Amino acid sequence: MDEIQPIAWVSGNLALLDQTRLPHHEVTLELSDYRQVVDAIREMRVRGAPAIGVAAAYAMAMAARQVASEDASRFLPLLREAAKEIRAARPTAVNLAWAVERLLALAEATPGPADAAQRLLAEAKAIQKQDVEVNRRIGRHGAALLRSQGAVLTHCNTGALATAGYGTALGVIRAAWEEGARFEVFHTETRPFLQGARLTAWEMLRLGIPATMVVDSAAGLLMREGAVRCVIVGADRIAANGDTANKIGTYALAVLAKENGAPFYVAAPTSTIDFSIASGDEIPIEERDPLEVSRLEGVKTAADGIGIRNPAFDVTPHRYIDAIITEEGVVRSPYTTNLAPSRP
Amino acid sequence: MDEIQPIAWVSGNLALLDQTRLPHHEVTLELSDYRQVVDAIREMRVRGAPAIGVAAAYAMAMAARQVASEDASRFLPLLREAAKEIRAARPTAVNLAWAVERLLALAEATPGPADAAQRLLAEAKAIQKQDVEVNRRIGRHGAALLRSQGAVLTHCNTGALATAGYGTALGVIRAAWEEGARFEVFHTETRPFLQGARLTAWEMLRLGIPATMVVDSAAGLLMREGAVRCVIVGADRIAANGDTANKIGTYALAVLAKENGAPFYVAAPTSTIDFSIASGDEIPIEERDPLEVSRLEGVKTAADGIGIRNPAFDVTPHRYIDAIITEEGVVRSPYTTNLAPSRP
Repeated sequence: MDEIQPIAWVSGNLALLDQTRLPHHEVTLELSDYRQVVDAIREMRVRGAPAIGVAAAYAMAMAARQVASEDASRFLPLLREAAKEIRAARPTAVNLAWAVERLLALAEATPGPADAAQRLLAEAKAIQKQDVEVNRRIGRHGAALLRSQGAVLTHCNTGALATAGYGTALGVIRAAWEEGARFEVFHTETRPFLQGARLTAWEMLRLGIPATMVVDSAAGLLMREGAVRCVIVGADRIAANGDTANKIGTYALAVLAKENGAPFYVAAPTSTIDFSIASGDEIPIEERDPLEVSRLEGVKTAADGIGIRNPAFDVTPHRYIDAIITEEGVVRSPYTTNLAPSRP
Repeated sequence: MDEIQPIAWVSGNLALLDQTRLPHHEVTLELSDYRQVVDAIREMRVRGAPAIGVAAAYAMAMAARQVASEDASRFLPLLREAAKEIRAARPTAVNLAWAVERLLALAEATPGPADAAQRLLAEAKAIQKQDVEVNRRIGRHGAALLRSQGAVLTHCNTGALATAGYGTALGVIRAAWEEGARFEVFHTETRPFLQGARLTAWEMLRLGIPATMVVDSAAGLLMREGAVRCVIVGADRIAANGDTANKIGTYALAVLAKENGAPFYVAAPTSTIDFSIASGDEIPIEERDPLEVSRLEGVKTAADGIGIRNPAFDVTPHRYIDAIITEEGVVRSPYTTNLAPSRP
């Protein structure tokens, strides 16, 4: 099977697999301007915290290239402006800010716009490559946990499409499967954007891993009847205490898992951890356009005129989380101590 | 505002407002054959436990009319056959079986097919009229509870459309509103059939009660942030111990409500209580066509080939239910004792 390549650097352009068109249309966008990348992130043509991070890194490299011909004194101010735009594309996933900061710091440390632009592109490529390696390590660490539990439920899409490749939570499922473990896989459809129905289903079919989809609200029934034994999800931002922002509905799955004695796992790279905030209360939750709820490819799904709230994420308090799986290993409570990077 | 009339007996035909076409098309089906009513129930053109009960009563009356010209000795056997078909239309809502049994017993007690057919029609009309009265009483009993709680969340559709008129859980919200109480109303979209988005939203707009819709999986966020202070839902079948089968996702709402200290109420007529079963474990849960999940008005919502389970209901154990509101009053735990009809 060909590996899914959601993001690629091709002949000086950023090639993005348009995730709003999947699964029925495989359309690749070729972007040459960083502002196009900002739009693609905002419109969720590329989504998933790690993938957004990689796309943002390329956007920074593209912005640097675009302003490199300016007077050297204007290079950094203009790049900082672009960084601000890129960072503002979506507020919840910290990987976006993480990538932007990292590339901005690199530009600031590199004399000469042309050299800086070149180094930023090399760095974006490195971040992309590193993300796949990080995901494979997350997969290996998490696979042992899954193998011991059996039937798993996942939410949203955390596969190759949500990352530079391989996936986080879906990468754990994939790794366990590649090691020869066999267990039932359930996933939600994930309203309103249907990342489960459109993207996870598509990836599972490509991977050849049999999976069963349910509407989001059926997860409780699966846990009560014992069809689901554990839950694994990704993360858009993890606070220092382990509180985790992730796709809307994650909190409900965590509460239901606890109520039914099913372990609840989060799989994410350490770049998703925001050590600058003590708890999930400080994570900004994006509210998106109500039309994402009331329209589906032009079909009206709701009565005209009804009020709609469309929060894209929720926060799961750390007490519901049995383990956070990063590339460095399996971290358990107390998270404030155990997540903290070891200082030399 | 005109009252919504989901079911009417007009010039010898059953007139059903086709709920698969709402909210964008108001189409009335005129049915003359009981088998058409069975199809309409199966295809959810009429849905909601009390409404199914009323439609089933009319279906029995129509069947009696259809076989009344047969030889008198064949009348009851043929009517029993029809009763079996009607009862099999949908398995979970007990109101359907309740209405069929009630009309079959009446036919068995009435000598002469023509007289029996006439009495069954009168009885169906009486059940319809009684349902509206029952709902208004449920509304009055429940309104006091809601007024003391404030912002409420409801699920699926339990309004006039789900009943002969007025509604159960939505009737409680409406009654409180009619009494002058003002509080925020939230409702889910209710995948996969979108009863919330299509039907509850439509009814709330007609009633002039401001309401805000969210995707099913956002209910937890609303409770955690305190936007929702209590939950009220209807029921498709209540076991003698209070365990309640209702639209898929109800169980998750009940667990989330408990976790967040929000009272969880069930509003239903006593005809929804099945005293023949001790607990919810005995309630059959209907699994419906996966296409209800993967297609929306012809639009494919999921990757082709993915496995899908589509359970239409789940069971909420009685320990999550703070009160069951029937036409007879507000019933609290222990339900086995307190729900039981008082024997003279």
